[in-house]
Amino acid sequence: MTSQQCLQILRTVKDVAFASVDAQGDPQVRIIDVMLIEEDRLYFCTARGKDFYQQLIAHPRIAIVGMNKDFQMVRLSGEASHLDDQKYWIDRIFAENPSMCDVYPGDSRHILEAFCINTGELSFFDLGRSPIEREQLPLGDGTPSLNGFVIQDAHCLHCGLCRERCPMQAIKKRGEER
Amino acid sequence: MTSQQCLQILRTVKDVAFASVDAQGDPQVRIIDVMLIEEDRLYFCTARGKDFYQQLIAHPRIAIVGMNKDFQMVRLSGEASHLDDQKYWIDRIFAENPSMCDVYPGDSRHILEAFCINTGELSFFDLGRSPIEREQLPLGDGTPSLNGFVIQDAHCLHCGLCRERCPMQAIKKRGEER
Repeated sequence: MTSQQCLQILRTVKDVAFASVDAQGDPQVRIIDVMLIEEDRLYFCTARGKDFYQQLIAHPRIAIVGMNKDFQMVRLSGEASHLDDQKYWIDRIFAENPSMCDVYPGDSRHILEAFCINTGELSFFDLGRSPIEREQLPLGDGTPSLNGFVIQDAHCLHCGLCRERCPMQAIKKRGEER
Repeated sequence: MTSQQCLQILRTVKDVAFASVDAQGDPQVRIIDVMLIEEDRLYFCTARGKDFYQQLIAHPRIAIVGMNKDFQMVRLSGEASHLDDQKYWIDRIFAENPSMCDVYPGDSRHILEAFCINTGELSFFDLGRSPIEREQLPLGDGTPSLNGFVIQDAHCLHCGLCRERCPMQAIKKRGEER
C-alpha cells in the first residue's frame, strides 16, 4: 500500500476524528471532513472563530483517525501546515466538495482557513480480517516510529510460551510466518 | 437530553475516537469501543502494553468523539479514572460485550485494564438537521465550558449585519428565536 492509497481511505470516510492539544496541554477531538488528498498531502479546513484553529496555530502537531465500512482503520500522526495561498485552496476545496457551498454560501467560505498535513506517519489496520493486519507508512519526511514489542534473540529460550499466550496468534516460529 | 442519553449515543457508535496526549505533549488518537454506560459513567479498556495505557496513566485528560448513522455527534472531554477492582470490571465488560471473548479468549482478558470517565463536559450536535442543533451537558462534577461567541448588548448597534452574514442563520432578533 502507498501513502496516497492510505490517505484515500480517510477521504472516503465521512467521520474522521481530528485530535489537537489545547492551551492547557489537554487533548481535544472533533469530527471533520477530509477535503482533498493530493500528492501525499491531506487537506482540511476549519473556521477562524473555532478553538481548533487557535490550537493548530499554537501547536500544529495533530493526530487523526478514521475507519471505513470494511473496518479498515487509518491513523495519521503529523503536523498541520497553514497554507500560504488561502483563497486558492479554499476555492479549490469548495470545487472538490460542492456540498460545502450550501453550508457556506457566497463569500462566507473565506471565514475558513485551509491546512494540509504533508509530514508524519501513517498506520493502516485491517480490522475486518482475522488475525488483523497492520502496516506503517511514512508521510513526506516523517518516519514511522517503531512501537510494539520485539523478541530479543539473545535472551530468548525458545520455550514458545509467548506464542501460546498471544490472543492474536501473532507469534510464529521462524520459517512459519504467514 | 440527559447526560446518560448523550453517552448512550457513543455506546451505539462502533467507531469512537479516543484522544490522549503523549509524553511529548502531542495529540494521539485511536478508535476504541465504548464498553458500558452506567450511572453517567462511560467505561472502556485498553491493554497494558499499549502506548495509550501509558499515556492515560501519565496524563488522564481525555477527549472522545463519535457520530451515529443519523449524523448525531457526541463529544466528551473529561478525565479517565483507572478503576480499583480490575477483575470485577473486566469480567463485567466481557459479560456485556460477548464478542470480546473471541478476541481475548480465556484468561488473556486480564491483559486489559478498565477505565471510566465520570467527570467532564458533553457536547451533542445534531448535524442531520438544518440548521444544526447543539447542546452542552455536564458529566459528573464537570461544568460545560462556555465557548463560541456572544453579542454584547452594551456595544451592539442593532444593525443586523451579523445576522445577514451568518451562514447558519443562527442569529435572530430577540423574540424571534426558534
